[in-house]
Amino acid sequence: MKMLHFAVLFALLFSSSSHAADFCVAKLKGAGSPAGYACRMPSNVTVDDFVFTGLGVAGNTTNIISAAVTPAFVQQFPGVNGLGLSMARLDLAPAGVIPMHTHPGASEILFVVQGKITAGFISSSANTVYVKTLKKGDVMVFPRGLLHFQINAAGIQAIAVVSFSDPDPGLQITDFAFFANDLSSELLEKSTFLDDAQVKKLKKVLGGTG
Amino acid sequence: MKMLHFAVLFALLFSSSSHAADFCVAKLKGAGSPAGYACRMPSNVTVDDFVFTGLGVAGNTTNIISAAVTPAFVQQFPGVNGLGLSMARLDLAPAGVIPMHTHPGASEILFVVQGKITAGFISSSANTVYVKTLKKGDVMVFPRGLLHFQINAAGIQAIAVVSFSDPDPGLQITDFAFFANDLSSELLEKSTFLDDAQVKKLKKVLGGTG
Amino acid sequence: MKMLHFAVLFALLFSSSSHAADFCVAKLKGAGSPAGYACRMPSNVTVDDFVFTGLGVAGNTTNIISAAVTPAFVQQFPGVNGLGLSMARLDLAPAGVIPMHTHPGASEILFVVQGKITAGFISSSANTVYVKTLKKGDVMVFPRGLLHFQINAAGIQAIAVVSFSDPDPGLQITDFAFFANDLSSELLEKSTFLDDAQVKKLKKVLGGTG
Amino acid sequence: MKMLHFAVLFALLFSSSSHAADFCVAKLKGAGSPAGYACRMPSNVTVDDFVFTGLGVAGNTTNIISAAVTPAFVQQFPGVNGLGLSMARLDLAPAGVIPMHTHPGASEILFVVQGKITAGFISSSANTVYVKTLKKGDVMVFPRGLLHFQINAAGIQAIAVVSFSDPDPGLQITDFAFFANDLSSELLEKSTFLDDAQVKKLKKVLGGTG
Amino acid sequence: MKMLHFAVLFALLFSSSSHAADFCVAKLKGAGSPAGYACRMPSNVTVDDFVFTGLGVAGNTTNIISAAVTPAFVQQFPGVNGLGLSMARLDLAPAGVIPMHTHPGASEILFVVQGKITAGFISSSANTVYVKTLKKGDVMVFPRGLLHFQINAAGIQAIAVVSFSDPDPGLQITDFAFFANDLSSELLEKSTFLDDAQVKKLKKVLGGTG
Amino acid sequence: MKMLHFAVLFALLFSSSSHAADFCVAKLKGAGSPAGYACRMPSNVTVDDFVFTGLGVAGNTTNIISAAVTPAFVQQFPGVNGLGLSMARLDLAPAGVIPMHTHPGASEILFVVQGKITAGFISSSANTVYVKTLKKGDVMVFPRGLLHFQINAAGIQAIAVVSFSDPDPGLQITDFAFFANDLSSELLEKSTFLDDAQVKKLKKVLGGTG
Repeated sequence: MKMLHFAVLFALLFSSSSHAADFCVAKLKGAGSPAGYACRMPSNVTVDDFVFTGLGVAGNTTNIISAAVTPAFVQQFPGVNGLGLSMARLDLAPAGVIPMHTHPGASEILFVVQGKITAGFISSSANTVYVKTLKKGDVMVFPRGLLHFQINAAGIQAIAVVSFSDPDPGLQITDFAFFANDLSSELLEKSTFLDDAQVKKLKKVLGGTG
Repeated sequence: MKMLHFAVLFALLFSSSSHAADFCVAKLKGAGSPAGYACRMPSNVTVDDFVFTGLGVAGNTTNIISAAVTPAFVQQFPGVNGLGLSMARLDLAPAGVIPMHTHPGASEILFVVQGKITAGFISSSANTVYVKTLKKGDVMVFPRGLLHFQINAAGIQAIAVVSFSDPDPGLQITDFAFFANDLSSELLEKSTFLDDAQVKKLKKVLGGTG
Repeated sequence: MKMLHFAVLFALLFSSSSHAADFCVAKLKGAGSPAGYACRMPSNVTVDDFVFTGLGVAGNTTNIISAAVTPAFVQQFPGVNGLGLSMARLDLAPAGVIPMHTHPGASEILFVVQGKITAGFISSSANTVYVKTLKKGDVMVFPRGLLHFQINAAGIQAIAVVSFSDPDPGLQITDFAFFANDLSSELLEKSTFLDDAQVKKLKKVLGGTG
Repeated sequence: MKMLHFAVLFALLFSSSSHAADFCVAKLKGAGSPAGYACRMPSNVTVDDFVFTGLGVAGNTTNIISAAVTPAFVQQFPGVNGLGLSMARLDLAPAGVIPMHTHPGASEILFVVQGKITAGFISSSANTVYVKTLKKGDVMVFPRGLLHFQINAAGIQAIAVVSFSDPDPGLQITDFAFFANDLSSELLEKSTFLDDAQVKKLKKVLGGTG
Repeated sequence: MKMLHFAVLFALLFSSSSHAADFCVAKLKGAGSPAGYACRMPSNVTVDDFVFTGLGVAGNTTNIISAAVTPAFVQQFPGVNGLGLSMARLDLAPAGVIPMHTHPGASEILFVVQGKITAGFISSSANTVYVKTLKKGDVMVFPRGLLHFQINAAGIQAIAVVSFSDPDPGLQITDFAFFANDLSSELLEKSTFLDDAQVKKLKKVLGGTG
Repeated sequence: MKMLHFAVLFALLFSSSSHAADFCVAKLKGAGSPAGYACRMPSNVTVDDFVFTGLGVAGNTTNIISAAVTPAFVQQFPGVNGLGLSMARLDLAPAGVIPMHTHPGASEILFVVQGKITAGFISSSANTVYVKTLKKGDVMVFPRGLLHFQINAAGIQAIAVVSFSDPDPGLQITDFAFFANDLSSELLEKSTFLDDAQVKKLKKVLGGTG
């Protein structure tokens, strides 16, 4: 019958093999490439690969920053591989702060779900500071690669959803980059002008050596 | 003094002119380019260009779809120009639906802020349907260019925040593309196999002619 | 001898290993990545990997659409992997139509080889229709991701060659996405405003269930 | 009425201003940018901006190469601006040849419409030659930036349609780059090892000086 | 004559107007776009737009860092606009240091022209430190967006040439971002865990307020 | 203790598995992809993967061109994989020349470390020649895909460092593409207008056949 010919024709032409025109759910175990992870076969993909439920749960904020970042990056949410975006949830207890950090190469938009957040970023061209206190429903964009921070601005728990322009935005917290590793205090002090006492103190707090 | 030399040196080198390394806030009035809108001079940019407050207000859902899309695309939120991402807010009354649509070339992640939403997309390779009912805090990704929809799945108002992998994702609602313009019924029927009565009925509802 | 030194020098420097500077013929069996398929070793590549002869043969148009699409996408023509383009051939019998469809993320140019074709696309911003009847030698461009169609406009067999801005452009035919799968009639009707009778009728024609 | 609310809502949200989500027809007079030409306002765009009729006419082959290249690049066909592809028509008289050339950064697919064409390209990694005689309906891909040529392979007029992975692929014919300008014979001979007599002879044929 | 036809033909086809296939020398005065600056007309371009002589002169290192960065970014060297790369020269007196910094979105390769340099970067995923002392002729790559530094490692003047993967890489020096502006000490201390005394001291040195 | 919670939290979230946000050191043995080589596991990466010492040694210039190209492309320097840039060293003896060549798709900046070099490139749009004699410290940019050359312009050894906008820029030397392979003299002569004697002579010098 005519209609069958049509269905069969297109099925033969276009449903063969694992092509990436539509999506490329990450095979996290294998080696990645500069463009992301290898694709799982479409026949092994279900709707659950495109859904992530981990952002519905508050992160544990009983820590030094009274805050938590819960990522839905490609490592947690393999469905975003190759699709140019990802998400995360921020929880900030009343004293919560997401310390100064960058995402190497990804821009970010923050949406305040609950509470108030003071957020800011610093431009590279003139070190200009862009700071604003955001209320529920406000959004703010942080351009790619620039230093930025978020601080709880009210006496109540704050929640935000942040989206990124990359499935794997990375997160480089300046304090951790400086103080939570074995970078020698000498090199660190020379390259940051921080005092030795300050460096030693924060290395101790954050578990660094050297 | 030594420190002044340093400050002056770097100021001279790097703060001159309107370079785009950091951001490129859109000058919406002028002509765009394939990469987005022209940049406003950094000296005319303030923090408010990076903040958008329009998503904090519920959209008006007293319409045919009992739903509203409130965009924070580059046209509404010029700070995202060139940064590879944007956002929008969805409001769905109890009977609300965001009808079948695509974003030409942009992927989307939806985060449920309130209520329950049944969402789905259809692959191009095998017309496979990926549908799921999402609860508060769940996220779902819709790969670029594919048909998808969102429907309120509970008896209460639902709210979602959606992010896109492009500052200007576009929105092509199939019903509007088919029935809300002057595309001749003859061409439309030939190219969709829809019955003439169906086409005429929906053209009337959506304001189409031809 | 001097000239040998030269030849040997460059051979050593630049002909080693499987580098991708020139081309990356697809290894279709393995897992793809967001950037396309893995490369075959250049030593296993011959000129026939860069040549495809399948477009010289008319497609079978004895089907419901009286038309055929013969693709030279990366799955059929592995030489285009990573090169940013592909081709296809369209055959339209006198009553032939390529139904409303999109290519997720790829633009298309159509060149009429024989006959006349009425082609059109619909913009997303204002649902504007751009339609034209093309004669032999005319070309028309369909911007990425937008709904478009092609219909035979003369009483004779029409042939067209179409090129795409991606090796793997995908093809989402609206009718197939709506009616040729197990998407529930209820969800489909809610998200398209189509009548139940219309949905049931086309599901039957195109092999859909639900 | 309800349906009007809907239509008005979406019109307000999405049809405002000249956004580039759909297309960006080139304003050829103004200054371009690295991403292409500035966009014309959508209100000034008609279907004829997306259609080009110049490829329907045979190019004049009564010249030194007995061949003609008729481009449908962005300069001739402004609708392709920003869309990642373009086309051209080749006409080769029985003795016709498209001399050795490259397209800086664009890949090409050639489709033989009529006659036979011997085509080839040379890899950079090992100077390997990939040559094939193509008949009507055959296609061949030439990877970006590599030297290639096309020669009429039968005693009759040949026609081909070529597509490119860029709206502005450029065309650098080696003979013209070497001999059709004022590059000094001394520098040219040193950098190509060609004999002085050969250089002088071809400079004369192609109008070069120096 | 035949050869004239050929020359005229190609001249007509390809030398018309300001196309960007080859290059796009920056018009620095006008507004930029996300893809870079607008192009100057090719007729106003000379070889000097593609040559920059400023890197031949040692930078003034009598400043707080005993070092100088001399950029050949698009602002100084408009010929690189749109070409995906740029350069700079580093001069380090015996006590010289290029303090901890990032380039938002650009990778860097450093080539040691003279002297010895200890260079390092810190990964974001595990805060791992990659440090090496480089001698004349060594190169080191610093991946995009990651914190890195360079310190003179011998008792003599050191010189390096650095190349970037972007015409406008930006430069965000952490000390300047933290201490050379009006970011309030309170927000800075909360978001960096630095002591108030340290913050005040460095704000004074680098000219910051707040 | 509080600070441990923080460290552990972030370690768990972000240091798991082989993500590519930071870098993707090439696994050269495996199959590449259009975006480059597969990534080695970060745990197997050391600082030496980001350092290359081969450019500190002069290339052997006792050959037919009295010159040498020493590449630090991804094949030699796997740390640049996916980072959008690479480097090479040029050595030119007094009579040295880097013959006419292109890099398919990569732009280049040359920095003169020692001596004087006459360099030039030819545009595709109008075959315009851009030539300049560069002294120590000068830089010149060669736009992607265009023919260019470098010739020693003084009586002493010249050294240059060149950077590319791609980890794998390729190198197609026109003489080698024409004369150092088995491309038939007949096809070569037809497609270049070179005399048979000239072709035979250079094929003999460069080891070609056919």
